[in-house]
Amino acid sequence: MVGSISIIAGRPAMSAPPSSPGSSLKAVPSAGPGPASGHPHTSRAFKATFQTFEDLADGAAGPGRLGALRAELARHGFDGYVVPRADAHQNEYVPAREERLAFLTGFTGSAGTCVVLPTEAALFVDGRYTLQAPAQVDADAFSVVPLSQMRPEAWIEAHLPRGARLGYDPWRTTIDGRDKLVKAVAAAGGILAPLEADPFDPIWPDRPPPPRAPVRLLDLSVAGEDAAAKLRRVQEKLAADRLDGALVSDPHGAAWLFNMRGADVAHTPLPLAWCIVPREGEPELFLEPMKLSHEVRADLARHARLHGVGDLDTVLAAFAKGRRVRVDQATAPVRLAGLIEAAGGTVDKGTDPIALLKASKNPAEIAGMRAAHVRDGVALARFLAWFDREAPGGRLTEIDAVEALETFRRASGNLTDISFPTIAGAGENGAIVHYRVTRTTNRAIHPGELFLLDSGAQYPDGTTDITRTLAVGAPTEEMRRHYTLVLKGHLALTRAVFPQGINGAQLDPLARQYLWAHGLDFDHGTGHGVGAGLSVHEGPARISQLGHLALAEGMILSNEPGYYRTGAYGIRIENLILVERRTVEGAEKPCLGFSTLTLVPYDRRLIDLGLLDGGEREQVDAYHAEVHAALADGLDVAARDWLARATAPL
Amino acid sequence: MVGSISIIAGRPAMSAPPSSPGSSLKAVPSAGPGPASGHPHTSRAFKATFQTFEDLADGAAGPGRLGALRAELARHGFDGYVVPRADAHQNEYVPAREERLAFLTGFTGSAGTCVVLPTEAALFVDGRYTLQAPAQVDADAFSVVPLSQMRPEAWIEAHLPRGARLGYDPWRTTIDGRDKLVKAVAAAGGILAPLEADPFDPIWPDRPPPPRAPVRLLDLSVAGEDAAAKLRRVQEKLAADRLDGALVSDPHGAAWLFNMRGADVAHTPLPLAWCIVPREGEPELFLEPMKLSHEVRADLARHARLHGVGDLDTVLAAFAKGRRVRVDQATAPVRLAGLIEAAGGTVDKGTDPIALLKASKNPAEIAGMRAAHVRDGVALARFLAWFDREAPGGRLTEIDAVEALETFRRASGNLTDISFPTIAGAGENGAIVHYRVTRTTNRAIHPGELFLLDSGAQYPDGTTDITRTLAVGAPTEEMRRHYTLVLKGHLALTRAVFPQGINGAQLDPLARQYLWAHGLDFDHGTGHGVGAGLSVHEGPARISQLGHLALAEGMILSNEPGYYRTGAYGIRIENLILVERRTVEGAEKPCLGFSTLTLVPYDRRLIDLGLLDGGEREQVDAYHAEVHAALADGLDVAARDWLARATAPL
Repeated sequence: MVGSISIIAGRPAMSAPPSSPGSSLKAVPSAGPGPASGHPHTSRAFKATFQTFEDLADGAAGPGRLGALRAELARHGFDGYVVPRADAHQNEYVPAREERLAFLTGFTGSAGTCVVLPTEAALFVDGRYTLQAPAQVDADAFSVVPLSQMRPEAWIEAHLPRGARLGYDPWRTTIDGRDKLVKAVAAAGGILAPLEADPFDPIWPDRPPPPRAPVRLLDLSVAGEDAAAKLRRVQEKLAADRLDGALVSDPHGAAWLFNMRGADVAHTPLPLAWCIVPREGEPELFLEPMKLSHEVRADLARHARLHGVGDLDTVLAAFAKGRRVRVDQATAPVRLAGLIEAAGGTVDKGTDPIALLKASKNPAEIAGMRAAHVRDGVALARFLAWFDREAPGGRLTEIDAVEALETFRRASGNLTDISFPTIAGAGENGAIVHYRVTRTTNRAIHPGELFLLDSGAQYPDGTTDITRTLAVGAPTEEMRRHYTLVLKGHLALTRAVFPQGINGAQLDPLARQYLWAHGLDFDHGTGHGVGAGLSVHEGPARISQLGHLALAEGMILSNEPGYYRTGAYGIRIENLILVERRTVEGAEKPCLGFSTLTLVPYDRRLIDLGLLDGGEREQVDAYHAEVHAALADGLDVAARDWLARATAPL
Repeated sequence: MVGSISIIAGRPAMSAPPSSPGSSLKAVPSAGPGPASGHPHTSRAFKATFQTFEDLADGAAGPGRLGALRAELARHGFDGYVVPRADAHQNEYVPAREERLAFLTGFTGSAGTCVVLPTEAALFVDGRYTLQAPAQVDADAFSVVPLSQMRPEAWIEAHLPRGARLGYDPWRTTIDGRDKLVKAVAAAGGILAPLEADPFDPIWPDRPPPPRAPVRLLDLSVAGEDAAAKLRRVQEKLAADRLDGALVSDPHGAAWLFNMRGADVAHTPLPLAWCIVPREGEPELFLEPMKLSHEVRADLARHARLHGVGDLDTVLAAFAKGRRVRVDQATAPVRLAGLIEAAGGTVDKGTDPIALLKASKNPAEIAGMRAAHVRDGVALARFLAWFDREAPGGRLTEIDAVEALETFRRASGNLTDISFPTIAGAGENGAIVHYRVTRTTNRAIHPGELFLLDSGAQYPDGTTDITRTLAVGAPTEEMRRHYTLVLKGHLALTRAVFPQGINGAQLDPLARQYLWAHGLDFDHGTGHGVGAGLSVHEGPARISQLGHLALAEGMILSNEPGYYRTGAYGIRIENLILVERRTVEGAEKPCLGFSTLTLVPYDRRLIDLGLLDGGEREQVDAYHAEVHAALADGLDVAARDWLARATAPL
């Protein structure tokens, strides 16, 4: 916050962030976790209000909580229980009260499952968390199992005692998730049953209440299409798919359909909601009434019948009878699929019909995204100019950089949140793909190192997500070679032109080919879909081996190849790219290509010109010229000088 | 055959095929369909003995045979029946007696399914056959349905009368195929049941007998590994997968394991056989005893217990009891899966454990494949020199070219068969991806056209598969542009280097990227696995969107991108490529790359040098130099001159 700008005691002075011409640093209301008041790091030149650096969970409490959970399970007649890291919508960011896995085990990763049995408990984590999880949990209470070694289902098959009764949460389990459990428990000779009550309620005294952030409605100028028109398109799709209706279990779907935004989870302006869209007539919208002002309620009521969340069962059952209802495979709780069938309806398991419509952005959304990226580019340029001045002195830490970046973003406009916790990895921390800096892991950024910075912002008109890898002092030849191989892939994907029908799995190799030729690769997808002023990770479009959906005009995706040298450094280069039509002479189908939204220079000190061909060099120069043209006017003299140097022809 | 070489009456003389130095044209025994004796085209300079040009099936007989089949079904208490184009091993080439679909409908394509109901029958074909099928079948008896419009299961769901009894052939249906039928018939409210008897037997008076070609054993110098060593590796794999044994339903598996070859189907030296491999101890091998000489029987008996095919049920049931048996998902009849379960065994549905071992060729197999490709390259060079002399005159037909090519192949060595019917498409016929020339479709090759020639040979030591697209007279700029775009993709795949773990789906786009940029693509995979002296289409390795298997050292695949301009021309360029280890400095994993086996020049007249970069030009020149070095010594003067011109630097 602006008031906290000062010089840190006992440390050399850092230059204060210059304010942009004609504006001053202004305070923005904190919509995220509050400041760690009294912490020595808070009285500083820069301050993060949306990102925290604490180790949130307490693994030491794990054994006690595990005991309490087992007692509670026994009270319900269960011998075991499955605890996924999920809420009822399978959200990526979940409300604090849904952090059941972290409460129980101490593990704070964004994905994981704990299976609790009478005398043992196992925590399953993916490759991102095989180091973090054992450091966070009590090893006597929980064995940590990498998913690459064993899936929870295989473990259940091997460990569940014959005849034992295993419970699962029907709200936080998908249909497919339940089916896998059924198979595993049957193989073990046990009994699988849903536990309707939440066994964490009685054992979690200070459990946070459900979120009730106010819902706001987007102006048509921002949303680009009103709810009535969107509803017509959804209903046309339902008719085309011969469905009588859809259960919209992904709250992003309802947020898109009704042009609503909220703040029920971190980093995404998402109001939690359920919705039923019939093939014809008015939808049913379920959300906490306290979240709606009179005005918002009146506006929503023009497009939907409004209900409290408590009415979902009754209304869904009445609707489902005799109807074929699309149930989203990825997000719908098995509880509601079961309810539809019990009510005499047919579950049509598939993809949320809204997801595909939402993936293609309309002109207003694209204009908002472009405006957000200019604003974000100005903030990044100011940050990078500052970083290049300060970092070679060797006195910055990862947290310093995160705080400075967030401060520059707040200063540049209407920052409403960061779009995810910034990944700021110096040296070997950069090689941890999903690194999150905490007070414990924080380290100084040394000259001669690479610094990987992956961050994003939420503005009222758009969402950003950008990664730059920065040289601090002089990089080695090897660093430059690896950076340039990553850059070549990033550029190849950016300039790709392809006929309609090509999917993300087919484009993904373009970003890897140069690394492959050097015997290298990276172990994540090249790109994910991005929402327009919504979630920074948005399905179903993606550029990865799993990207089976054809890309279409208006989709926005990330382009973020990388390379990670364990124990040494990480490299990732990320821009957001927009799928656009391209005119190609002699083409047999409509053609598509990418337009880059992100406006931030690549680090020219890391580019090995000997590895670029003429076309690639021109491509970088053209992009840098575009960045310069877009940002220069928004910068003060010092940053403008930096930008001119950073975007000069190679 | 050599004896038929003469000058065709009434047509201008074509130059006779020059014999290679030190050898003369020698007759080879015909192992394929016999010559069409008495046909006016048989007394010619060249002659095909393995390929025929007749329209084999007779659609006019369809309605009568359909009536007879319905009567036979009724006799067994069935209302309908599913006729796949399959034998009990799901072979690509099936014995003549298994051509039930062609017998019934007149449709001779390599894939299709007919569903027969009491008052209607539908033939389902894929995109390759949507023109051919309607031309072959009687439209009053059979409706032809493109699979892209409707799957047989959806049609059954919509057309099967409630309560009707639909039969399927449990020998010619896989587990997955049966499961799909179960779902469809249940949805229609019908009854699905296996029909154990073959209803075609009583209605097909002159049905050919089962094939009984003699089995021969490969020399160890050709096979490279004896059956005992192979068996050890298969059994290690069974142990690693915690299986008690495997049912080897794919006869290629038994052929590989026991180093057997035969001639039970066309174009593949395959002996039909079944096999059971236990985790420990001796395998059980089932084949027609008449196919074994005393010597072969004695040799095989050292590695397996031998049985007639009639013993399969009894032996498999006795083996399966209490055992977990791998059953190959792609080829095993549901009949045998059911038998295993009925006997108290467990079916472990998956991939034939031999398939992966077989895919990686050993040094002897690779040496044989290389020798076969030199021999094949000599034949192709002689053919191409002849073709370039004759074709611009405009007097050659597609069949002339096929006959000449087969003759040159016979002349160059121990041709045992063609590896598939040559695809020889002039002009617009080239745009039909699976075109097969018949007396009816045969057309002259005109100057100014492209000629697509996709062919392959079976030699005792190896299998070839090559496509060249040839300019006849002067090609247009557009033809050269399209040819060069295809060539660039072919070259990009050829020179790809990548770390172990990369699969065929990831490599496939490398061959398409240049076409994509021009708004073009091709609608088939880029490459299929190829057997070593076995099937020209060999799973499970492939380079296509479905290629989920990581490539591994020793695999041999085709590299055959294409482009098809409907109604005008087709372009395809195909070499076989071998996966080899590559040393890459700084690589984090063992690296792989491709070595090209095929030795035949690309058509330089079709290369637009303006579209090649320096590296691509060098790559073509280096390949052409290699081709010249390998083939020149095997050629007479005229062909050697042609080769020198064809392989001169671009």
